[in-house]
Amino acid sequence: MKKTFVLKRTTEIKSNRKDDRHPISLTHEKNKDDDNLRIIPLGGCEEVGKNMTVFEYKKDILILDMGIQFPEEDMLGIDFVIPNIEYLKGKEKNIQGVVFSHGHLDHIGAANILLKKLGNPPIIGRPLTIEMIKHRQEDSSKGSSKALKTIYIKNIEDKMQFGPFNLSFFKIDHSILDAIGTIIETPVATVIHPGDWMIEHGPAGRSRVEYTNLAKLRKPTILMLESLGSTNSKKQVTESQMLDNLHSLISSAPGRTIIATFSSQLQRIGQILEYASKIGKKVALDGFSMKLNVEIAKKLGYIKPIKGTMIKIDKINDYPDNKVIIICTGSQGEEMSVLSRIVTKSHRFINLKKNDTVILSSSVIPGNEKVIQRLKDGIYRLCDNVYHSDIMAVHASGHSNRSDIQEIIKQINPTYFIPVYANHFMLKEAAKIAYKIGFSKDKVFVPDNGSIIQFNRSGAKILKEKAPADYVFVDGLGVGDIGEIVLRDRQILAKDGMFVIIVTVRKNSGKICNSPDIISRGFVYLRESKNLLAETRRKTTHIINSAASSGNAVNWSSVKNEIKNKIGDFLYIKTQRRPIVLPVIIEV
Amino acid sequence: MKKTFVLKRTTEIKSNRKDDRHPISLTHEKNKDDDNLRIIPLGGCEEVGKNMTVFEYKKDILILDMGIQFPEEDMLGIDFVIPNIEYLKGKEKNIQGVVFSHGHLDHIGAANILLKKLGNPPIIGRPLTIEMIKHRQEDSSKGSSKALKTIYIKNIEDKMQFGPFNLSFFKIDHSILDAIGTIIETPVATVIHPGDWMIEHGPAGRSRVEYTNLAKLRKPTILMLESLGSTNSKKQVTESQMLDNLHSLISSAPGRTIIATFSSQLQRIGQILEYASKIGKKVALDGFSMKLNVEIAKKLGYIKPIKGTMIKIDKINDYPDNKVIIICTGSQGEEMSVLSRIVTKSHRFINLKKNDTVILSSSVIPGNEKVIQRLKDGIYRLCDNVYHSDIMAVHASGHSNRSDIQEIIKQINPTYFIPVYANHFMLKEAAKIAYKIGFSKDKVFVPDNGSIIQFNRSGAKILKEKAPADYVFVDGLGVGDIGEIVLRDRQILAKDGMFVIIVTVRKNSGKICNSPDIISRGFVYLRESKNLLAETRRKTTHIINSAASSGNAVNWSSVKNEIKNKIGDFLYIKTQRRPIVLPVIIEV
Repeated sequence: MKKTFVLKRTTEIKSNRKDDRHPISLTHEKNKDDDNLRIIPLGGCEEVGKNMTVFEYKKDILILDMGIQFPEEDMLGIDFVIPNIEYLKGKEKNIQGVVFSHGHLDHIGAANILLKKLGNPPIIGRPLTIEMIKHRQEDSSKGSSKALKTIYIKNIEDKMQFGPFNLSFFKIDHSILDAIGTIIETPVATVIHPGDWMIEHGPAGRSRVEYTNLAKLRKPTILMLESLGSTNSKKQVTESQMLDNLHSLISSAPGRTIIATFSSQLQRIGQILEYASKIGKKVALDGFSMKLNVEIAKKLGYIKPIKGTMIKIDKINDYPDNKVIIICTGSQGEEMSVLSRIVTKSHRFINLKKNDTVILSSSVIPGNEKVIQRLKDGIYRLCDNVYHSDIMAVHASGHSNRSDIQEIIKQINPTYFIPVYANHFMLKEAAKIAYKIGFSKDKVFVPDNGSIIQFNRSGAKILKEKAPADYVFVDGLGVGDIGEIVLRDRQILAKDGMFVIIVTVRKNSGKICNSPDIISRGFVYLRESKNLLAETRRKTTHIINSAASSGNAVNWSSVKNEIKNKIGDFLYIKTQRRPIVLPVIIEV
Repeated sequence: MKKTFVLKRTTEIKSNRKDDRHPISLTHEKNKDDDNLRIIPLGGCEEVGKNMTVFEYKKDILILDMGIQFPEEDMLGIDFVIPNIEYLKGKEKNIQGVVFSHGHLDHIGAANILLKKLGNPPIIGRPLTIEMIKHRQEDSSKGSSKALKTIYIKNIEDKMQFGPFNLSFFKIDHSILDAIGTIIETPVATVIHPGDWMIEHGPAGRSRVEYTNLAKLRKPTILMLESLGSTNSKKQVTESQMLDNLHSLISSAPGRTIIATFSSQLQRIGQILEYASKIGKKVALDGFSMKLNVEIAKKLGYIKPIKGTMIKIDKINDYPDNKVIIICTGSQGEEMSVLSRIVTKSHRFINLKKNDTVILSSSVIPGNEKVIQRLKDGIYRLCDNVYHSDIMAVHASGHSNRSDIQEIIKQINPTYFIPVYANHFMLKEAAKIAYKIGFSKDKVFVPDNGSIIQFNRSGAKILKEKAPADYVFVDGLGVGDIGEIVLRDRQILAKDGMFVIIVTVRKNSGKICNSPDIISRGFVYLRESKNLLAETRRKTTHIINSAASSGNAVNWSSVKNEIKNKIGDFLYIKTQRRPIVLPVIIEV
């Protein structure tokens, strides 16, 4: 496939026209009705995760992010969910590029699956983001990252042109390094998309990020705003507060300090390393993804290796306890993660002691509440000094709150406002914030996954037609092969198990050969259910013999149905459980 | 079984000795070593739920609460978990009575199962609590509530004696009417147990509850304190604040007002009824448990029927929308609940309109976060005016926070402190609060389920031995029949499904009769996996034929193992999924 793109570096934004509606006279335009920018969020507008947005100007397409969503409770056995890209089928050659806002999995996690399906369009991102995409690609299939066409945003001031899309970028505070906001200028409108963002009110060692300059972009501007914080009225913990608390806990720790955080929290890891070096403590990292990410960050120069501070995890016992800091993964209670292994006493090097200090420098990802409660139970059993966000400000969130959303909208002052990257009710609450500060209803769009929002000279609207947005499940090697039927079976199996009845009958007479075989799992404890099984066999035999005794040819399919229903009902009466009943009749 | 108990009504607590250690000289005592009070929490100390505590003085036993726990995520198909009562086996006739602190399911939910197993000892509680127990009993088996021996606490000042246990009670603020605290005086110590509690700092229409008088009880006193709030530093919403907000939303609602709350929130329901009558609106209740509870509360005189205010749910369309209030269940997103049916548009009478107002006057029960997010998504889609605790103070919690815990400990000033009725880490945090205000470590006990804390003249200690506290699962009609094995099978089935391979072979030759039958559910979509199935059949046939061709007698059990392993591995390589593989060989 042939792909043309031009990497242009300019230093300033070309226009700052004030007219909201008809910003540019396009002389090259043949068919004015065609002069549409269509924005299609393929994911990220009805859930947290699988963020992916398509920008389509005439025939050209630009994509932002390709994330995964972690499965909901009823998506049993599913590894993750990816955006549905049916809309892009047949348009692969029109894709000019894919911009990645930052390296979190809900923004890059589906890249290794989708890029290939889309013919490997060029990918654009900051160095850490691109390196993380490459690593995930290699993880899924060794050597495959060579197929990626990468365009690094080396400098945040870089400008690029992809067909009709003029791209520029801006700095964003978020819980991962190299997070960027993207500006997409098209002939009809300018899109401003901060990706995931927050306003850091107390940054440590750097100045506050302001967005007022974005108000000067060529109008009409469209602000697409991640709105996870739209129902959060709590005051944010600032980075400085958090670091002060971490420093005080680390410096006064009577034993070792174990800090669990997200493996992508490289800034915090760097800050702890610096502080450790300053007060003469040693730091060991543990957790596969954390070690990997720190390696990448070191290679990129984002984490400075401080001589004599970093030690290997198997060397922690060579130092006095109160000189040792361990930074590790597992704050979400993930099975087999470092913290889980510590709690279950199966970690090779860390045996938690009563006077160790454990700090969960992390938030609770929705859905993980109960698992994290159990994790805390386990840690508190082993250790007297446990700190987490409920007790002390030891974590600063990467997302904004309601007042920040209001502030950023005011600073950017866009023509249109489209809340995205959150649950539907959060988008609605973000929209309400916009209304409150003066936006009219026709300037705010709350999209669904698959919504097509069209901008042109005469204004903007959501089209009636929608892009397909059904779930695409990834389970093992299968992408999209698990559907409703398999999932529903898993749900029934999970609830009440299964019950297979195998009967061999004589082909000519239909008479039963020997007592039916029963296989059951997840239903009852078979050894203690002998009477139930015996009675089931009796009932099954009776059904078969009645059918066979008529003398006519037996309709085995209807006999199977009868077994299924009658044995199903019988088991329900006896146990109030409804396993999947599967009758098998074998004619010999 | 013979049971003796004496119901005594006195008006004052007999003693207020100050001596902490040896309060009473017991002349009736034969063996002083026997003079022990043992407190055994059988549940409620490692989780939220299945609260049940045993008090054992010499041979006599008193029990507080018999609750259920809702299943954790990995307890697939389990309806609920109940306390393990193995410790009480053989001691049934010593049980003097069971006190119920209030009518929530985590305190009364296991009564219908456990009371019968324990020979129906007398049950003691306030009228609403006892009526709720009776109703649950009738639900489980019609007519069975007649077997209950009920002792009503008609007046909060009532005193009762059950063998060596002198009982008195005190008022408690909690999210259900008739919640009480219990005082259990025994010859060696006095236990104070508030049950579930809160300090209502802004009560509506009644005075604040104080606990300072409990400091005067005969020492040593033991405060057993529900500690769910020990990690909650947030300022509590007061009842007055909440009611003010509800009133303002109700009075200004442009359309109907739909308020979802817990069915046991009878006080709030009564308050809304009163307000509705005052401003001339009509109230319809919906939800089975809510209507039932309100009926009970009316019968007991707790909710006054206000003429002309209550209407039937099928009559809501007879009134102007802005005159209608609907109070209903389903705030936790329970399947088939009123609110879920409204959202899925399957409610018979309520068709949500854009200008209706929906208020979730409820908290999020841990574990329900994601389901409630989806519920909110659904409501926001249909309705423009949605209010919940993140947006406005429309709910007041029934549980305390950290500063309340500190305050109640100070007010009661007990000799010993035992935090209970919460996760382990919450108990530990409550203990830390006690240490902070001066308790020494030997006066604070953090129990597990099954811990035996012994009090006698020489002090107090946790015994090394423990009462059995393994999970007892209730699944349909089965109580305790589901164990690790069945649960593990359900987990595997839930994740990757099952795969049954049925082979018929000739008894004499071991030769295969026809192509193997395969039944699979929850693994792959079979219609799209024909190649996989064909290859599985080929591989299976090959394994059987190789075994049979040796000429020796075939060891079918080892052939089955071979099929299980080889086909299991084959399916994993092809799909990266591991269904339960069940080979069946039928000799004919």
